[in-house]
Amino acid sequence: MNEKEKSTKPRNYVSRGTYTKRYYQKRTTTESNSAKTVPEKRYLAQSKESRKATVKIIPLGGLNEIGKNITVFECSNDMFILDCGLSFPDTDMLGVDIVIPDFAYIERNRDRIRGIVITHGHEDHIGGLPYLLKKVNVPVYATRLTIGLIEGKLKEQGLYGKVKLNVVEPRKTVKMGCMAVEFIKVNHSIPDSVGMAIHTPAGVIIHTGDFKVDFTPIDGKIIDLARFGELGNKGVLALMSESTNAERVGFTHSEKTVGASFDKLFQKAEGKRIIIATFSSNIHRVQQIINCASKYQRKVAVFGRSMVNVIATATELGYLKVPDKIMIDIEEMDDYNSEDIVLITTGSQGEPMSALTRMAMNDHRKVVITPMDFIIISATPIPGNEKYVTKVVNELMKSGAEVVYEAMYEVHVSGHACQEELKLMLALTKPKYFIPVHGEYKHLKKHSELALQMGIPEENIFIASIGNVIETDGNKMSIVSQVPAGRTLVDGLGVGDVGSIVLRDRKHLAQDGIIIVVIGLERNSNKISAGPDIISRGFVYVRESEELMHEVKDCISDVLHKCSPAELREWTFLKNKMRDELSECIYEKTKRSPMILPIIMEI
Amino acid sequence: MNEKEKSTKPRNYVSRGTYTKRYYQKRTTTESNSAKTVPEKRYLAQSKESRKATVKIIPLGGLNEIGKNITVFECSNDMFILDCGLSFPDTDMLGVDIVIPDFAYIERNRDRIRGIVITHGHEDHIGGLPYLLKKVNVPVYATRLTIGLIEGKLKEQGLYGKVKLNVVEPRKTVKMGCMAVEFIKVNHSIPDSVGMAIHTPAGVIIHTGDFKVDFTPIDGKIIDLARFGELGNKGVLALMSESTNAERVGFTHSEKTVGASFDKLFQKAEGKRIIIATFSSNIHRVQQIINCASKYQRKVAVFGRSMVNVIATATELGYLKVPDKIMIDIEEMDDYNSEDIVLITTGSQGEPMSALTRMAMNDHRKVVITPMDFIIISATPIPGNEKYVTKVVNELMKSGAEVVYEAMYEVHVSGHACQEELKLMLALTKPKYFIPVHGEYKHLKKHSELALQMGIPEENIFIASIGNVIETDGNKMSIVSQVPAGRTLVDGLGVGDVGSIVLRDRKHLAQDGIIIVVIGLERNSNKISAGPDIISRGFVYVRESEELMHEVKDCISDVLHKCSPAELREWTFLKNKMRDELSECIYEKTKRSPMILPIIMEI
Repeated sequence: MNEKEKSTKPRNYVSRGTYTKRYYQKRTTTESNSAKTVPEKRYLAQSKESRKATVKIIPLGGLNEIGKNITVFECSNDMFILDCGLSFPDTDMLGVDIVIPDFAYIERNRDRIRGIVITHGHEDHIGGLPYLLKKVNVPVYATRLTIGLIEGKLKEQGLYGKVKLNVVEPRKTVKMGCMAVEFIKVNHSIPDSVGMAIHTPAGVIIHTGDFKVDFTPIDGKIIDLARFGELGNKGVLALMSESTNAERVGFTHSEKTVGASFDKLFQKAEGKRIIIATFSSNIHRVQQIINCASKYQRKVAVFGRSMVNVIATATELGYLKVPDKIMIDIEEMDDYNSEDIVLITTGSQGEPMSALTRMAMNDHRKVVITPMDFIIISATPIPGNEKYVTKVVNELMKSGAEVVYEAMYEVHVSGHACQEELKLMLALTKPKYFIPVHGEYKHLKKHSELALQMGIPEENIFIASIGNVIETDGNKMSIVSQVPAGRTLVDGLGVGDVGSIVLRDRKHLAQDGIIIVVIGLERNSNKISAGPDIISRGFVYVRESEELMHEVKDCISDVLHKCSPAELREWTFLKNKMRDELSECIYEKTKRSPMILPIIMEI
Repeated sequence: MNEKEKSTKPRNYVSRGTYTKRYYQKRTTTESNSAKTVPEKRYLAQSKESRKATVKIIPLGGLNEIGKNITVFECSNDMFILDCGLSFPDTDMLGVDIVIPDFAYIERNRDRIRGIVITHGHEDHIGGLPYLLKKVNVPVYATRLTIGLIEGKLKEQGLYGKVKLNVVEPRKTVKMGCMAVEFIKVNHSIPDSVGMAIHTPAGVIIHTGDFKVDFTPIDGKIIDLARFGELGNKGVLALMSESTNAERVGFTHSEKTVGASFDKLFQKAEGKRIIIATFSSNIHRVQQIINCASKYQRKVAVFGRSMVNVIATATELGYLKVPDKIMIDIEEMDDYNSEDIVLITTGSQGEPMSALTRMAMNDHRKVVITPMDFIIISATPIPGNEKYVTKVVNELMKSGAEVVYEAMYEVHVSGHACQEELKLMLALTKPKYFIPVHGEYKHLKKHSELALQMGIPEENIFIASIGNVIETDGNKMSIVSQVPAGRTLVDGLGVGDVGSIVLRDRKHLAQDGIIIVVIGLERNSNKISAGPDIISRGFVYVRESEELMHEVKDCISDVLHKCSPAELREWTFLKNKMRDELSECIYEKTKRSPMILPIIMEI
């Protein structure tokens, strides 16, 4: 990766300063509209008009779904956006690459947007950014590593240098018109993750982002529980807390437990090559692999484009401590004995094109799996990916390799808070209102039940839907209206050009294929001068179904034969007639319903 | 269900009798070829010729896969089949309904087949039967309930009355030419499950079928550990044991634990209607629901075609004890208060057309979900179904119902043996050779490791593949050859007419849709007299992509314009040219690769 220029490029650093509810309740709403850092004292001389200023919270993604997290905060004429993620297509979104939020509401309010704050660098929080920035170019604020990862994305999309990227450190605050956003350190499966305290005229709203509580994190930086507590003591209007693991009891284990497992496994793997697959963004995991490699005097080679990119960015920005000469190039592998090497690779979800999958399928340019390989899959399959991961595990094992995967050893821990951590966050922040975020309905519901158990009144808990406008003036909160929200499908370069009709057709085609019937009609006489020709794809193996294909042709000939000259002039009627009769004939014989496409050519 | 005649229909009952290795080593191979019951003493007067008789074990399904379990056993001129299941299509088998084994080897040897023995009535053990019986009509042997369920299947496929169905009780034996199959009671998630001891001239081969060890089963019938032990003591040549849960440590819990959970939940649900979804075949689970309903004085209504059918069969055959007047018809529900009712329904896997899914989607004719519903999903999602189940749970919760699902309470236990039970089976049977069956490679591998730990030499453990011919004469065992084995795809009425080419086309169509280009060429002059017409499906929403569709047309016109008259005569060349150029043009503009289908009509 040639991104050397990046670290020397000047960025807007925002100055230190924290703001609490008190200041904001005194602010007028005629303040500067642009998002910029302001010295603390500027907040002191404000009129009392804004006491009744209302704040709107508008989740545009991430509720009743996993992924594409995005929330809009509004106050007076100011708006800002918190996160802008993507999600991966459901199985019924055939051919769709990724799903991004519907930005209609943001576009419509483009002049009011003061900026975008990002909690961390995972795809479900930054993956939609390039698409949004192409439409609404506003400054982006995030921690250093997150900005580094965003830069990589913008380069890929030809946006690099066209967007203002601002590095913000934890405990620092960004002004967004009449609101201000304070970054608060949290633990998660990617370094430099933050939650946000949003200081508004109506009060402080805390958004946790994704978090867990790790008392022994790899980088030594524990989630800033003290600051959450301090805010709680001063009074938190609302808590928006992530719900991913709300169904799981107890505490999520520390990332360090994985390091201990790696140590044992490295000993067990003595004499063998070690291959470890994990998420490229899990830099702490990668750090622990490198630490183990160093301890057991192995060299490290890295596979998979995203892994190579992330490791380069993280190393450059100082998030990954790499001992001298431990990393080797793939091309240098042959200079070392297998037992002196660790390969770090992508593919922990069994993604079909990933490095690990290609190794498993014996389709990798540089790596052939043998019984002398010890392979660790350091991840849990995301729902929907289980079958892919299983396939990879089976294939690796068939090559004789030892494979350590899911639950066999503690080679993975979650990055999300379990129930006890979620309760801890509620206990620290003591919010008046609670809005569970990031999760399907069942997660939000479970999280609500925890809040209820902890004494938050039921009427102060809001399980919202995307597009809901949640309004509060500090004294009350309610869902007042609805703005456009939904999903935009990205397929190749097309953004939004695949919708329900295209998907319906793809599903139909996938199910039973297509039969095309072509006839040529003479313009004046309406005489059939060509065809009927029958072509099918994805229906039956034609060479072995000649009889059926003859019957199809006979059916169409029959329809045409029975048509009056007048009917032959009514092409819509004629097409429908051919479609209906053929459809019935085929269903009767095969119990299948291929798409039937009659084409009439005018000659 | 109108199956009254069934229970009165005479069946071939086989007489009691157990045979051990000793007898069979004395047998000649010229014995009667037909599968029938023989008195024990007949085995005593046999020559010594067969000492060297070899037995072949040929798994045709169920290894390196989940489902479509089927194994062929051969000795001299005799063959029989153990189980004949189906499996469900992988996500890449678009449009396929079910997958059955490739029966080519069996068809080729039709005259040698003495019968089919079935271990239990699950689809992955009986679902392929109707397809096999249509090709090779041989007698079927199974326990009473299994036969009842098979009868139902045969009726659906118009085979009822055309196949000899024989009820066999546990501890009884069926003769299959020079082999004999002894049925041995096991525990599983369907009553009347058995394992098989196959007495052959080479020795005793035990096939466990699916099993668990339940010391407190609902019907009081514990797995016949004593018989497995007795056989083990006399000498077991080979154990074929199921591997489904080979990755799980410990013991599978008793079905009774679910009953205890139900009891607690029925108390918790006081005042609400209770809806419980489970597998229709899990009759013990249904029994426990009925027991709870009886205890708490609720009426029971049953939803879902398969649930209604199985409950009817099980009740009729005495496997389900239903107190008088507890069952009510769906139409009678309105006569009762909601809180006095339990609904038992299908749909525990979130199957899109199931009763529970329709209730969740507010699309059920008789049931509307409200906050006064208490819903229990008494099943664990099968890998691949997690998303469907989650969707159903979310929708049910959105209607305000309380939903108890997976892992929240012990509302489900597995029907398969965990590691300690698998070890118990190995310890009891003490086999010389071990062949793990029923599972993907990782399961078979794990199961092998357990056997290895217990002292079975590595060279005596066979991880086989379907189609492998495993041969043994009692003294040695080896994989000697390969017979045709694989999968046959069933789509509607078509069995085997969807293969790799059709699936490849369906996948292509699903991914990016299709563009059809039609031109009309005059027969003699090769002048283009019609078109080019462009039709697309599943590619883009055409009304919003007019520009792109114009470019497509221009591209084709351009190709045609540049063609020499000679080239216009070469239709294959012309079609390829149109396909290639258009494909390139579209990929450049959209990064998509729809199927392109050029059609030339001769006029």
